[in-house]
Amino acid sequence: MTETTPQPRKKILVVSAHPEPRSLNAVLTTFAVEHLRAAGHEVRVSDLHAMKWKAALDADDVPDHPADQRLHVLAAHERATSAGRLSPDIAAEQEKVLWSDAVVLQFPLWWFSVPAILKGWFDRVFTYGFAHGPAVGPPYGEGALAGRRALLSVTVGAREPGFSDRGIHGRLADVLHPVQHGLFWFTGMAPLEPFAVYGSNDLPAERFAAAKREYGRRLDGLFTDEPVPFRSLVGGDYDHDMRLLPGVEAPGVNGLELHVRPRG
Amino acid sequence: MTETTPQPRKKILVVSAHPEPRSLNAVLTTFAVEHLRAAGHEVRVSDLHAMKWKAALDADDVPDHPADQRLHVLAAHERATSAGRLSPDIAAEQEKVLWSDAVVLQFPLWWFSVPAILKGWFDRVFTYGFAHGPAVGPPYGEGALAGRRALLSVTVGAREPGFSDRGIHGRLADVLHPVQHGLFWFTGMAPLEPFAVYGSNDLPAERFAAAKREYGRRLDGLFTDEPVPFRSLVGGDYDHDMRLLPGVEAPGVNGLELHVRPRG
Repeated sequence: MTETTPQPRKKILVVSAHPEPRSLNAVLTTFAVEHLRAAGHEVRVSDLHAMKWKAALDADDVPDHPADQRLHVLAAHERATSAGRLSPDIAAEQEKVLWSDAVVLQFPLWWFSVPAILKGWFDRVFTYGFAHGPAVGPPYGEGALAGRRALLSVTVGAREPGFSDRGIHGRLADVLHPVQHGLFWFTGMAPLEPFAVYGSNDLPAERFAAAKREYGRRLDGLFTDEPVPFRSLVGGDYDHDMRLLPGVEAPGVNGLELHVRPRG
Repeated sequence: MTETTPQPRKKILVVSAHPEPRSLNAVLTTFAVEHLRAAGHEVRVSDLHAMKWKAALDADDVPDHPADQRLHVLAAHERATSAGRLSPDIAAEQEKVLWSDAVVLQFPLWWFSVPAILKGWFDRVFTYGFAHGPAVGPPYGEGALAGRRALLSVTVGAREPGFSDRGIHGRLADVLHPVQHGLFWFTGMAPLEPFAVYGSNDLPAERFAAAKREYGRRLDGLFTDEPVPFRSLVGGDYDHDMRLLPGVEAPGVNGLELHVRPRG
């Protein structure tokens, strides 16, 4: 959507996850940063490979954890989070997430998911006590990070029909559901429809130009486009065992789409 | 299923992905290894944390890649794979996968997916030219790794109803679809229904004993249980754009279940 009135200045964290600084993903990251700054926003970037981000969660993330004690991840995360004693690389990323009004993730779709380095950013940064847990609010819609928006920008080697409603790869919304619903919505963030560049291994100039135009429109709508209308856990649609109540969905809906309210 | 006749001796690769050697995941890994060996099988283990497995794919994985040249991951993987010039840690894992008749992955469900270190095993080991690509066969059912079986064994902190058909977390089959269908079936492996231990953060002795009994039965059925009947790409169900042909599915089926043949 092209804005006709200036947006208020916002804070945006762009997280980029490709090993090659000359990749399409790097180009799209630079494009997003420049486009958002030109619109008056404040932007910070976590370029995970450039930062040599540690992907694997382990006991080094919680430096006070006694080496001779079994590491219970949830409990150790909660203790270290509340004590302000997570490893400095994690604390720095949590500070950026809290600072932000929106998070944009730029990555190539590898094995129908995010690259390991970005999964490691999820595993290590979104700790119990920071991003979820009873102390910070109920999951799915009203969690710790509520008030923030989230946009996935993904490059996909395969062509678009394979990710359509009947495509063999699964609908892109279903493939990305663990991130859109399981990370963002679970922690309270409002995810927008993902932005995808298909056929990314061979992108002629005209398709690249069209992709940039479309990505620019999506970035312009970061704070005004309608988020995916996932159902809230506490909105009356679910029972006490977190199952959707009978008859809440539109006729014929099943699969992961059950957890999306009908679109107007 | 309890076998009444001895199974022929098979080769099984168990991949384990938890940072804590005293964790439930470690216990289940040891249980699987001992159970399978007691049944006469040959077992090898990749304990990713113990191996200090490198999670992030980068140019170091393809040592012949010139530093001044842009890294195109697919092309670089293909060249290094066909030249036998992948980094030694990757080559060793590929050899184990090729050696195996079945792969068992043991992991905790973190953010509705595998831990980063295991995702990095997917990203780095299943290279173009080894696990997929025109040179090694069509995707989805007849790929490079056909003839192998695959079993996910996953510990889940949440309780089971949330992962049931109407559960807010999504059906476990849908949440794990990127691995079951996107990695295993894509490369030709036949995935079984996942084995899950729910409520894993607080597992009383009797539930743990029941889980071990059930896991033992699933391991006994590794080569005899019916795999998930995913549709083959070349079986006549899809058009040339990889979309399911109209009317192939049973009435009322949609979402990711479209890609599973009706069960008998």
